[in-house]
Amino acid sequence: MDDEVSIEVEEYRRTVRAVLRRAGASERDACSQTELLLDGDLRGHSSHGVRRLPVLVERMRNGLIVTDADIRVEWRTDSFASVDGGWGFGATVAEAAVDAVVRRADRTGVAVAAVRRANHIGMLAPHVERIAGAGQVGLALTTSEALVHPWGGSRALVGTNPIGIAVPTTGEPLVVDMSTASVSMGKILDHLGRAQPIPAGWAVDEHGRPTTDAAAATRGAISPFGGSKGYALGVAFEALVAVLTGTGLGTDVRGTLDTTEPTTKGDLFLAVSLERLGLQGTLPALTAYLEQLRASGAGGGAPVSVPGDRSRAVRALRLAEGVPLHRATWAATRALIGPDPLEAPHA
Amino acid sequence: MDDEVSIEVEEYRRTVRAVLRRAGASERDACSQTELLLDGDLRGHSSHGVRRLPVLVERMRNGLIVTDADIRVEWRTDSFASVDGGWGFGATVAEAAVDAVVRRADRTGVAVAAVRRANHIGMLAPHVERIAGAGQVGLALTTSEALVHPWGGSRALVGTNPIGIAVPTTGEPLVVDMSTASVSMGKILDHLGRAQPIPAGWAVDEHGRPTTDAAAATRGAISPFGGSKGYALGVAFEALVAVLTGTGLGTDVRGTLDTTEPTTKGDLFLAVSLERLGLQGTLPALTAYLEQLRASGAGGGAPVSVPGDRSRAVRALRLAEGVPLHRATWAATRALIGPDPLEAPHA
Repeated sequence: MDDEVSIEVEEYRRTVRAVLRRAGASERDACSQTELLLDGDLRGHSSHGVRRLPVLVERMRNGLIVTDADIRVEWRTDSFASVDGGWGFGATVAEAAVDAVVRRADRTGVAVAAVRRANHIGMLAPHVERIAGAGQVGLALTTSEALVHPWGGSRALVGTNPIGIAVPTTGEPLVVDMSTASVSMGKILDHLGRAQPIPAGWAVDEHGRPTTDAAAATRGAISPFGGSKGYALGVAFEALVAVLTGTGLGTDVRGTLDTTEPTTKGDLFLAVSLERLGLQGTLPALTAYLEQLRASGAGGGAPVSVPGDRSRAVRALRLAEGVPLHRATWAATRALIGPDPLEAPHA
Repeated sequence: MDDEVSIEVEEYRRTVRAVLRRAGASERDACSQTELLLDGDLRGHSSHGVRRLPVLVERMRNGLIVTDADIRVEWRTDSFASVDGGWGFGATVAEAAVDAVVRRADRTGVAVAAVRRANHIGMLAPHVERIAGAGQVGLALTTSEALVHPWGGSRALVGTNPIGIAVPTTGEPLVVDMSTASVSMGKILDHLGRAQPIPAGWAVDEHGRPTTDAAAATRGAISPFGGSKGYALGVAFEALVAVLTGTGLGTDVRGTLDTTEPTTKGDLFLAVSLERLGLQGTLPALTAYLEQLRASGAGGGAPVSVPGDRSRAVRALRLAEGVPLHRATWAATRALIGPDPLEAPHA
C-alpha cells in the first residue's frame, strides 16, 4: 500500500533508540524501551508500537519519565514485593519487576511484584513470555485510563485493564494478552479517520446508547468485551491492581495516554516456578492438548489458533521481512531525532 | 408458579443433610456439602444447587466420593501447597484448602493451594468470599468437563472453566464468579425441555455451525463467552489449573457431571493478605469507586450492578422468603432420604 512503508528491524531499532537517546534516555532505558515498542509492532499491535513514541518523548521533556530511575523493590514478605518504579520507563521497570519475581520464585515457588510509579509497560505478552521462558507460569495485570463503560452504564469509568498469562509447555508457551475492552480506542480512531462506521457492540455514545458512529463513540465509551462478564473481569482487575499496588481507580488513572500527568496506574506480576515446585509433569500433556486444539478446526475451515500462535507467526514474519508502518508514523518518528538522523547518537 | 415450591432454608438444610447422612456422609461432610448446595440455590444458580444431589449420592454409592477423606496439604514451599483431596466431598476439601491458604497468607502474605482429587466444589463465589471475609484478596479457578469449543473449532475440547475473584472493601466485597462459557449446559437443557430455541451465540451444532436449536446444541458444543477472548481465557485457565494441580486437560477431565468416573479436574486457590502486607490503604477508595459505578446508570435505566451485588440481593431475599425450587426437584430430593423422611438421621 502506498501509505505504508516496511522498516527493517535494525533500522527500526537504530532510529527509535536514537530518538530516545536524543531526548535524554540512558543507553539502557533507550534499549529496553525500544525493544518493547518494537515488540508491539512486531506482534501487529501498532497501538503499542512506535506510534507511542511522540507521547513518550513529550513525557520525558515534561519530566514525567525519568531516565535511570531509582527503582526500589521492597520485599514485604518472602514472596511479595512492592516496587516503586521511580517514574521510570515502563520497559525498564517492568524488566526489573519480572527479573525480581523470576529470581524469587526460583526459591519460594511463588512471587508477586506490585508496581507503582512506572510508565506504560506496553503489551503484557513480552513480560509474561519472559517469565515462561524461565520455566515459570506468568501472570500480569495492568490498569489504564478509564475508557470503558460499566455494563448498563454510559460513562467511561473502567480501564481497558488487560490480562497477560503465559504457561510453559515442552515447546512454545501458551500466551494470552487481551484487554477487557471490546476494542482499543486506537481502532475506533482509525475508523473515524477513514470515515467508516464501527461495528455494533464496540461502543456507546455519550448517552450510553450503542452506536456505530465512530465520532459518537469517541464522545461516549468503549464497551467491555463479552457483555457483563467482560465488565466484571475489568472491574475485578481494576480493584486487584489498585489495592495491591496502591494506585488509582477509574478516572483517577492517568499518565499513559497524555503528556501532562504523572502515571497513576499500577502493574502486577506473578510468577510460579514449576521446577522449584516439582510441577513439570503435566507439560507434555499440555503440549499434546494444544496440538489437539490446533487440529480441531471445523471441516474445511482455518486451523484453530492457540493463544499466542498468531502473534508468534506475525512476529516471525516481520522479523524477517520488516515492520509495516504508516508512512506518516515513520516520518514522525524520524523527525523526532532532529535535523540530521545520521548524526543521531545511537552508541 | 404451579410447578414451583418455596422451601424454607431450615427445611432445605435438614432435608439435604438427611439425604447425605443416609447415603453415608459424616456429619461434617453432610453439613459442609449442604451449605455449598444451599449457597448455589440461594444465589439463584440452581445448576449448583440441590439439583446436583442425585449425582452426589450416586457417586457416593459408587465409591467415587469418600466421606471423612484423608485430605493432605503438602506445602512444597512456604507459600505453595499441593492438596490431595483424597476423593473427598468438594465442599470439605475446598474448605480445607481455603483455610490453609488464609492461615498461611496471614504469615507469608501470599499463599496458593493447588487441589487434585476433590469432588465438585460448586460455585466459586462462596470460597473466594470466605477469603475476602478474612481481609484477603481471593482468587479461585477450577476446571470442568470439556463442553466448550475452541474459537473456530467445532468440538467440545475446553471446560467451562470459571474464575472467582473477591476483593475486600470497607463494606461488602467485590465478588466475581463467572464461567468462560457463554452459558451453562443446564440452560441449554432447560430450553430443550421447554422446546424453545436458544439465543444466537450460545452454541454450535456437531458441525461447528452456530445454532439456535437446543437439541443440535447438545450434540455440538457451547460457545465461549466473548468470542476469541473468552476462548483464550478458558484455555489459559485450563492450562494453569492442570499444570499446577497435575490434573486432566480437555476431554480427560471427568467426574463432576457423571456418576461413574473418579474426578480428574483441579482447583486452584490464591490468597493475598492485605493486613500482612500493609496494603489496606486503598480500600476506602475502592468502596467509593464501586459506589460511583453503581450510581452511573444511563439516564432512567436500572442502576449499574457491581459484581457480587445481584447474587447478594437474591441471597438475602431467599434467606428471608425461602428457596424457590422446581416441585419435581424437591420431590426427587426428598425421595432420596428413603421411605420416612421424619426418621432420617439428621443428628
